Amino acid sequence: MSVDIAKSLTELEKLGASLYGRDFLLTWEKSDAELKSVFIIAELLKELHAGNIPLDMFRTGLAVSNFRDNSTRTRFSFASACNLLGLAVQDLDEGKSQIAHGETVRETANMISFLTEAVGIRDDMFIGKGHTYMKEVAEALDDGYKNGVLNQRPAVVNLQCDLDHPTQTMADMLFIKNHFGGFEKLKGRKIAMTWAYSPSYGKPLSVPQGVIALMTRYGMNVELAYPEGYDLLPETIKVAGDNAKKSGGSFKVSNSMETAFRDADIVYPKSWAPYRVMERRTQLLEKADTAGLKELEKECLAQNAGHMDWICDEKKMALTKNGEGLYLHCLPADIKDVSCKNGEVAAGVFEKYRIGTYKEAGYKPFVIAAMITACTKKNPAKVIGELFKAGRKRVL
Amino acid sequence: MSVDIAKSLTELEKLGASLYGRDFLLTWEKSDAELKSVFIIAELLKELHAGNIPLDMFRTGLAVSNFRDNSTRTRFSFASACNLLGLAVQDLDEGKSQIAHGETVRETANMISFLTEAVGIRDDMFIGKGHTYMKEVAEALDDGYKNGVLNQRPAVVNLQCDLDHPTQTMADMLFIKNHFGGFEKLKGRKIAMTWAYSPSYGKPLSVPQGVIALMTRYGMNVELAYPEGYDLLPETIKVAGDNAKKSGGSFKVSNSMETAFRDADIVYPKSWAPYRVMERRTQLLEKADTAGLKELEKECLAQNAGHMDWICDEKKMALTKNGEGLYLHCLPADIKDVSCKNGEVAAGVFEKYRIGTYKEAGYKPFVIAAMITACTKKNPAKVIGELFKAGRKRVL
Amino acid sequence: MSVDIAKSLTELEKLGASLYGRDFLLTWEKSDAELKSVFIIAELLKELHAGNIPLDMFRTGLAVSNFRDNSTRTRFSFASACNLLGLAVQDLDEGKSQIAHGETVRETANMISFLTEAVGIRDDMFIGKGHTYMKEVAEALDDGYKNGVLNQRPAVVNLQCDLDHPTQTMADMLFIKNHFGGFEKLKGRKIAMTWAYSPSYGKPLSVPQGVIALMTRYGMNVELAYPEGYDLLPETIKVAGDNAKKSGGSFKVSNSMETAFRDADIVYPKSWAPYRVMERRTQLLEKADTAGLKELEKECLAQNAGHMDWICDEKKMALTKNGEGLYLHCLPADIKDVSCKNGEVAAGVFEKYRIGTYKEAGYKPFVIAAMITACTKKNPAKVIGELFKAGRKRVL
Repeated sequence: MSVDIAKSLTELEKLGASLYGRDFLLTWEKSDAELKSVFIIAELLKELHAGNIPLDMFRTGLAVSNFRDNSTRTRFSFASACNLLGLAVQDLDEGKSQIAHGETVRETANMISFLTEAVGIRDDMFIGKGHTYMKEVAEALDDGYKNGVLNQRPAVVNLQCDLDHPTQTMADMLFIKNHFGGFEKLKGRKIAMTWAYSPSYGKPLSVPQGVIALMTRYGMNVELAYPEGYDLLPETIKVAGDNAKKSGGSFKVSNSMETAFRDADIVYPKSWAPYRVMERRTQLLEKADTAGLKELEKECLAQNAGHMDWICDEKKMALTKNGEGLYLHCLPADIKDVSCKNGEVAAGVFEKYRIGTYKEAGYKPFVIAAMITACTKKNPAKVIGELFKAGRKRVL
Repeated sequence: MSVDIAKSLTELEKLGASLYGRDFLLTWEKSDAELKSVFIIAELLKELHAGNIPLDMFRTGLAVSNFRDNSTRTRFSFASACNLLGLAVQDLDEGKSQIAHGETVRETANMISFLTEAVGIRDDMFIGKGHTYMKEVAEALDDGYKNGVLNQRPAVVNLQCDLDHPTQTMADMLFIKNHFGGFEKLKGRKIAMTWAYSPSYGKPLSVPQGVIALMTRYGMNVELAYPEGYDLLPETIKVAGDNAKKSGGSFKVSNSMETAFRDADIVYPKSWAPYRVMERRTQLLEKADTAGLKELEKECLAQNAGHMDWICDEKKMALTKNGEGLYLHCLPADIKDVSCKNGEVAAGVFEKYRIGTYKEAGYKPFVIAAMITACTKKNPAKVIGELFKAGRKRVL
Repeated sequence: MSVDIAKSLTELEKLGASLYGRDFLLTWEKSDAELKSVFIIAELLKELHAGNIPLDMFRTGLAVSNFRDNSTRTRFSFASACNLLGLAVQDLDEGKSQIAHGETVRETANMISFLTEAVGIRDDMFIGKGHTYMKEVAEALDDGYKNGVLNQRPAVVNLQCDLDHPTQTMADMLFIKNHFGGFEKLKGRKIAMTWAYSPSYGKPLSVPQGVIALMTRYGMNVELAYPEGYDLLPETIKVAGDNAKKSGGSFKVSNSMETAFRDADIVYPKSWAPYRVMERRTQLLEKADTAGLKELEKECLAQNAGHMDWICDEKKMALTKNGEGLYLHCLPADIKDVSCKNGEVAAGVFEKYRIGTYKEAGYKPFVIAAMITACTKKNPAKVIGELFKAGRKRVL
């Protein structure tokens, strides 16, 4: 996993991909070279951090975190990433400030950005809303920057929306890339992105959608499996299919966890809510129909309960390539007999791969920092190179 | 709007006005030279920020924010200002810590200040309370500093009280100063500070009070207009009258929005609660009389509703100087058919001046940073000059 | 109180006590030399801060604050300490993130620590829980560091648990050490740690427990006094007895405030809840027995009310050494006729010693910063020496 700093900097410069002045909202809006840039930057930052080199490319500056859904881990990943780069995080707490869509988004986006360099948003609960909101914020910032309201155009980073979860899936990708020894080594490998049973309700669709959209770009054979009724958003299915064709991989959808696991190099068993439930939920939430929401939750949990056999246990793991497929999870996993009675994964399987999933998560702060770096620097290689050569210590 | 750094630094030094070791609570406690200093510093900081020069005059240090009323924008302005100077913001959340007036203020002010350089307070909801509270905090800090409890005396900055809103009005002033080409160019100009209809209740009086108290110092003809019953605090009316006399401007109060707008160079139409309602509200809140408060809100909204014609629309704007008077607002404005059914301003008028109001708000972080600089530095010109000459970059 | 920097650095180096890679949870787990190191570092940091020398030994890095009980003062002490060292604080708000004991502790501890250097925890409400939780976090961090999940092992600092409150008692110790002119001057002095009446309920036992455990190490005669039924945890009583034997001091328990105050050089009158009430409370909270908790509170307040004569007033202070014993308190004190009708201390007594108690509290941020320094630096003397010699200014 050790990174050759000089070689990576040269590779980054040669790629010539620039995200400067732009946002990071969906992986499928980005070219292969752009994604590659972010991956290289993330690994450079991780290596330099491990080498005790300060990466404070911002001497002062704010980063705004806007969490429209609870989150400890993503909150810490974002805070860690911003701190690594020298930015101070200021939470935009909409409960306190009563911000809504519409006119207010345009104005608030500018009001919080006079000295802001990055805006991280998590808005994943409502189908058709999260990505739309992020674009609204981005347009408002364009408007403010163009009109001289803002000295700088802050980069918007998607910390999970209704469509994609790029900081998660790109962390997943770095983990498997390093596990197998390089992007090239992923070609032809099979990854099973499957639904798994959870006793909870309303989990976003962004992880499976993001995984199938990203992994299909690297020549992998991606198999998506879920019980009937747990479809993903059609547009992300289309993205995955198109990407597989281009990359020389494949993309297949089935309704069997066993089929998906068979001979898989990698498995990613994870619960999500049925798309139609999420849609109805969005409508009920808009009408503030509390009784309807309760009813929907009950229905959804009952529907989930019909699929308790969708668990990643030793028997299913035995189906994977040589019985030694790699287990992935975005965490926290619902672990049978540990965090719940029945869940996504058996305790023994999880324990075997536990440290791996922690390391997988450990890429996330650096992926976020890389996105901010790529979107705010004209020449990231030059900036990182300067920090590398400066000879300073992060910790005395 | 471009600032000559060297010239401004010289001008600042020549002014010889020192706020060192003091607080910024009310504009009318400050001399003209002291206000001028803060204006110069604010514009210097804004120019240097735009020029990518780090202004971290504090290497480490805390800034305490104490918001006794909800606020996103002021919260971000304060956080931005402190971050610009190198300070980390720590919120004093009284909900969590059960802080009250009296003994506790004296003690808490010291307990939070061992490593604190600035304290920003917003306390605007209760007539007779906010400014009093800020003075209590300031006295407690004097006591702690004098007795060797604190290594440094943190500066208290008024982020809005029951009397004044200096960070807002001084931002307004910088905006119009630059719009018209200098403080001298404001002489003889007419500004209409008028009430406007809003469907909300209990808006503070500090903005109109602060505006009439500040604008009258610059030789302007200030006309305050509101429907009967929406009087401001008598002491601020007196300040405005006295200031107008000294500056060679004028100060007039009327009950007609049209009269006020006629031939105005600048209009500032904004809702506020009747003084007597705020007084009764304070009393009811002290008694925790929930029923009484509900009743008062109903009465107040009904009273407001009798004045829906107090809207800044195209017809009224046509009355202003050449039909092209400058529209100001502290934001967020209640925009008719956008953020509410009937409001302070017509959508077309607001849209025409929208970017201007954003720029007006954009001065606020720098005004706050300037107040902190002025109150904590013996020689602000020297400190800013050193940062300017250091040749460092804020963003790599 | 002035500190000879060079001499202190030499003394620190000679001590040769290393806390590197460890945590600071209980004073009685630490050797005398280890405590001495923390004291020396704390005073060095305080002196250098007063001398305007930046102590940012971390260029970037997070500090996590995990408050499982409300606290303004400890929150600010921790924030101040971390900011002093260059760390940014990120709150772990468990209300928002639904963290529980068990599996989740292990995982969450790692998830929040990828770029974290220190974790401050306050968990003082439940007998048998707080210290256990802190050890669980520490073990999880060991596991993550050992397995390559974390680049660094963050130091866990106890900001108050069910057993000890080391940041408070070590601040108390520095205050009395300086008051009497050195650790040697404490030998043979009498300190009365006594219960005092308060109209509140459920105050933790950690302060009296921590005080008797720490003060007995310095050859002092420690007398603990409380009304029947207000016992402390037996294991802390044992620690105090053992320490007294080793240090040549004494440790005595009585049920009379007067006896304890007689000829005392120092008094520390402070309320706490009966141990058995805290135990029952823990059980009721586990069962979420709201009615039982209400009943318990009522009982406890009634029990307290039987001991209103346990107040530190002028009459009792007259019993102390020459009527001039030193009054200590961890603040906030319940002051009779000021913050409550009947309380721990008479207004006149408190006022006489008020500034002293503020100064006592003023050591706390530096004690916390010293613990973090000691636990994260291989050679704290070298690091502090470098910062001292660098010739930089903290505030321009």
